[in-house]
Amino acid sequence: MARQLTNPSTQIRRYNRLRPVSARSVQIQDAFWSPRIAINRSVTLPSQFQQCEETGRVDNFRRASGKKEIPFEGIFFNDSDVYKLLEAMAFALGQHPDDEALIRMADVLITEIADAQDANGYLNTYFSVNRVGERWTNLKDMHELYCAGHLIQAAAAHFDATESTRLLDVAKRLADHICETFGPVSEGKREGACGHEEIELALAALYKATGNDRYLNQVEYFLGARGQEVSALYTTPPTRDFDRRYFQDQVPFRDLTEVVGHSVRQMYLDSGAADLYAETGDASLLAALEAQWRNMTERRMYVTGGLGARWEGEAFGADWELPSDRAYAETCAAIGGVMWNWRMLQIAGDAKYADQMELQLYNAMLAGLSLDGASYFYQNPLSNDGSHRRQPWFGCACCPPNIARLLASLSGYFYSVDDSNGVWAHLYAAGSAELPLQGGGSIALKQETIYPWDGDIRFTVENTPHAGATLHLRIPEWAQGATVQVNGEAPRSVEAGAYAAVDHPWTTGDTVRLTLPMPVRALTADPRIADAYGKTALARGPLVYCLEQIDHDGVDVRDIVLSDDAIGIDFQKELLGGVTVLRAAGNVLDRSAWAAGAYLDRAPGGSPGQAIAVTAVPYYAWANREAGSMTVWVRKG
Amino acid sequence: MARQLTNPSTQIRRYNRLRPVSARSVQIQDAFWSPRIAINRSVTLPSQFQQCEETGRVDNFRRASGKKEIPFEGIFFNDSDVYKLLEAMAFALGQHPDDEALIRMADVLITEIADAQDANGYLNTYFSVNRVGERWTNLKDMHELYCAGHLIQAAAAHFDATESTRLLDVAKRLADHICETFGPVSEGKREGACGHEEIELALAALYKATGNDRYLNQVEYFLGARGQEVSALYTTPPTRDFDRRYFQDQVPFRDLTEVVGHSVRQMYLDSGAADLYAETGDASLLAALEAQWRNMTERRMYVTGGLGARWEGEAFGADWELPSDRAYAETCAAIGGVMWNWRMLQIAGDAKYADQMELQLYNAMLAGLSLDGASYFYQNPLSNDGSHRRQPWFGCACCPPNIARLLASLSGYFYSVDDSNGVWAHLYAAGSAELPLQGGGSIALKQETIYPWDGDIRFTVENTPHAGATLHLRIPEWAQGATVQVNGEAPRSVEAGAYAAVDHPWTTGDTVRLTLPMPVRALTADPRIADAYGKTALARGPLVYCLEQIDHDGVDVRDIVLSDDAIGIDFQKELLGGVTVLRAAGNVLDRSAWAAGAYLDRAPGGSPGQAIAVTAVPYYAWANREAGSMTVWVRKG
Repeated sequence: MARQLTNPSTQIRRYNRLRPVSARSVQIQDAFWSPRIAINRSVTLPSQFQQCEETGRVDNFRRASGKKEIPFEGIFFNDSDVYKLLEAMAFALGQHPDDEALIRMADVLITEIADAQDANGYLNTYFSVNRVGERWTNLKDMHELYCAGHLIQAAAAHFDATESTRLLDVAKRLADHICETFGPVSEGKREGACGHEEIELALAALYKATGNDRYLNQVEYFLGARGQEVSALYTTPPTRDFDRRYFQDQVPFRDLTEVVGHSVRQMYLDSGAADLYAETGDASLLAALEAQWRNMTERRMYVTGGLGARWEGEAFGADWELPSDRAYAETCAAIGGVMWNWRMLQIAGDAKYADQMELQLYNAMLAGLSLDGASYFYQNPLSNDGSHRRQPWFGCACCPPNIARLLASLSGYFYSVDDSNGVWAHLYAAGSAELPLQGGGSIALKQETIYPWDGDIRFTVENTPHAGATLHLRIPEWAQGATVQVNGEAPRSVEAGAYAAVDHPWTTGDTVRLTLPMPVRALTADPRIADAYGKTALARGPLVYCLEQIDHDGVDVRDIVLSDDAIGIDFQKELLGGVTVLRAAGNVLDRSAWAAGAYLDRAPGGSPGQAIAVTAVPYYAWANREAGSMTVWVRKG
Repeated sequence: MARQLTNPSTQIRRYNRLRPVSARSVQIQDAFWSPRIAINRSVTLPSQFQQCEETGRVDNFRRASGKKEIPFEGIFFNDSDVYKLLEAMAFALGQHPDDEALIRMADVLITEIADAQDANGYLNTYFSVNRVGERWTNLKDMHELYCAGHLIQAAAAHFDATESTRLLDVAKRLADHICETFGPVSEGKREGACGHEEIELALAALYKATGNDRYLNQVEYFLGARGQEVSALYTTPPTRDFDRRYFQDQVPFRDLTEVVGHSVRQMYLDSGAADLYAETGDASLLAALEAQWRNMTERRMYVTGGLGARWEGEAFGADWELPSDRAYAETCAAIGGVMWNWRMLQIAGDAKYADQMELQLYNAMLAGLSLDGASYFYQNPLSNDGSHRRQPWFGCACCPPNIARLLASLSGYFYSVDDSNGVWAHLYAAGSAELPLQGGGSIALKQETIYPWDGDIRFTVENTPHAGATLHLRIPEWAQGATVQVNGEAPRSVEAGAYAAVDHPWTTGDTVRLTLPMPVRALTADPRIADAYGKTALARGPLVYCLEQIDHDGVDVRDIVLSDDAIGIDFQKELLGGVTVLRAAGNVLDRSAWAAGAYLDRAPGGSPGQAIAVTAVPYYAWANREAGSMTVWVRKG
């Protein structure tokens, strides 16, 4: 079943149009992201380390290595939390290689992980000691390959950041054990694939780190094993069609034209498939990825970029099934969406992928984290009565370390380069970057802006050996009327929803000024999205807004009706860490006619209800003050 | 914990204002219900018997009695399906005591059930043979008391219909075993209550059948054991708050002011609690029942009377959480709603309970059954793309026999009597009834009407020994402007949402003409019900209507916008077994602006879209023709 792949050159990801620039080459120094990244390193990573120790997650490794005789603690896939945390630490070490506390914590984790590995390479603490006989017996439910994948991702990140092979060697031994175990029966192996995808993108990362084709071939094998009734996936009771959709196993991947089932799994699967395309150029993979992406973005994604409509199965719903109160919109799914969009962007260099990535970063993902960096949302509803509040940790703690690793690696999502001395700017935030060019040497850029509060962005070329580099600047779809100005010359109009190519014989000190207009947008949803019918969502720049009760004199904001399209903006330095709020006029819906029951025999007539001044705040910042009602979709008059 | 109850008189249900009239005393002879009841007896009961045989449900009893050496087949609570079917057969036998086929089938079931009972009274086929040691070890999940309850209900119905004590004796032995096993530790028993309520109302029925206080005391015990952290409920892993809400165990019943968790369980629990109130007059029970009823009907019930908003946990949602496409609205929950409303009606004689009962009968329940009586809905969405179709049976087959027993006992829901020679008519359908009066003797009534298609109802007194009987006629809340006319005299206006009392020195041949106006009603939902915002639901008389694609030239009816409030009616004799359809004018929403994505930067302007003639059919009749889209809530222009 596994097609043998050859990689004649040492060139990795050769079917990508763009190449990532390491997070280590980019410094974000702004008022929006920098404090979050700093808190992530100084507060979040140590506190998550502590949580992993206190909840027995690290002790599970000590148990597996025989250092402690204790029962296994927690959920069977808890190893993955430790690995994701370690991956986050690796990214942070890449930017701060001298952080002694980080070095010490990472060392503890790496030591315990390495010591827990079996001689044959196997590593999963749940299946140690008394469960050795159960290894690899239930790939569908038990997340063994999923956990392995997170270890491998952590190892690849750690190797990239530190050049130490200590963790990478552990990962290679485990990956080799997996490659020896799973594959076509004709090769004397056993068939199988993991119920929770992750191993695919991880092995692709290991291939990138090592150049060893074996790992890439294994990605091809695991991807091809889905939707095939592979016996090892079905050791537990009969699986109905519903269940197979849950883990994207109802059809072969290349026949899948929609996003279905568990949202995080779908995103990780798509990320792995995109990695495989990047190495193989397999057109059938790309066609499936594009079809799934269109289905997701056009029909199954919240206006915030949130993914997953259903609590049951943490799953995508049907087309346009996007309830607000009962949105699942798991933080991890948004992060998975960022990962997948990033890969599609590298493949195609198409701004639509960067737009989606930015939408998810600023909204669906960022809402998962409190402003103080200490508590998290697992689900991210678009409307709430005030009862949904962030928690410091979860029994199933996938989201907290996932946010941590994204924030720690965020600078890696800002730029790409290409084979034609092109430099691609995807995201905007003040900072500086040293971008290695394909022809040799690098270009240094400084970015100045108060984005996302304003669309005025100024690049300064600080160093360049390549006079001919082309600067590709993303013009978001929402930035109609954007202009680019080089060295103060006349502004040039550029197309929204595309990259504006700026060619210039660059010399140090050159400036490029990008102006992205940021009018307030009153979004109208496809009328098939029931919870948005007759309503509008406010947005400005990359940010989606919401109303919170605390800004409305105790009124349930879900009762507010926007009475006017005139919406003003107002930067509030002291509010929510400094945010631009939106101001509008509205009324409070008069619900008195329904006091005795939910259904009236006729529509009540009547006045528009008490006038109210409406204030909208960025969605990511909700639930950081006194608890109260919230809504993204606001009724329209 | 169990309060000792005394029942000084032999009078059962003494705190009820009304007393039921046996289904055997009432004959329905109409064009609406009679064919359904006939099909139920001639087609449904035999086919369900066959299903129970073919799926091993009956063989499980043969296995338990040692007649067959086979593995247990199916789900652990499959006994309950056999019991519910037998209960339906008992009701049918009550009306047709000479139906040989019915007698034979019931005899097979009773024989196999009786033979499967242990010497100590225990009876549950899942926990026979190889699982004897696991009996009563997991009351939370394993439905042992639930299954016992359904046996007891079947036995009470069978005794009532046939006066045979053969099945009743089995039920008494099982009930005695339960009473000996569960109770306060101080009495040397073990604490416990069932995760799926049912035993409560069943033991109340057994008390009614036997007059033995023991069973009523056990109802009090089981009801009181909920919300108490009773250890036997928690033999399986740690139960989070969420899980306890699932089976109404988060607080003691008397502190419960909302309907929560699994909807069927909540309805059965409330039915049992209402039965207990009827015997004890315990005001704290009634207060809790009334609070829960208000919460349900005002905030957590579909316009069809459907109950249960969530697929996860088959559960009630939060207030006003009533999605249309993803409605759960289990058929069994609607039946449970009928059962509870019936009991509240007997307690209070308040027409609001009869209104709800009628709403659920004609809509939420009846939609669960195909017109040919051969296939069923488990879930009853209020809007669908055409993919939801009735099935002939289910692995979890609770709904089919539940519909069967309701239809077989339907005539028992038509009338009550009271202690003041009052006769109460709750439902309307052509037929006749012999109603026993408290003071002795009886009154015979003939009812003539084509209800629900018209509100003209004529009662004729065919026999009466009691000149002073008062006729109480329910005037539905929707029947504004109703009148009553005795013997052709001047019509008298009567209040809607109440019972109209008609006093007359009745003699044979007297007539009472009730006129219930049936204008088409365009219902408007509380704006907090997101899926109904900006929409209307059409209703007429007791029926809620919907649009189906087949009546609209292939147009997705969820795109139709009603453009006019003028709605006509049109009886179609050949359509769907004969229905009154509604006719209106509308337009088809133009969705072209959203072709490229779900969210537009501004509201598209534009015309109202292509005109279309709109036809609405009764909701209960949907999905009986070619598959296509359906919606109850229709967009308003």
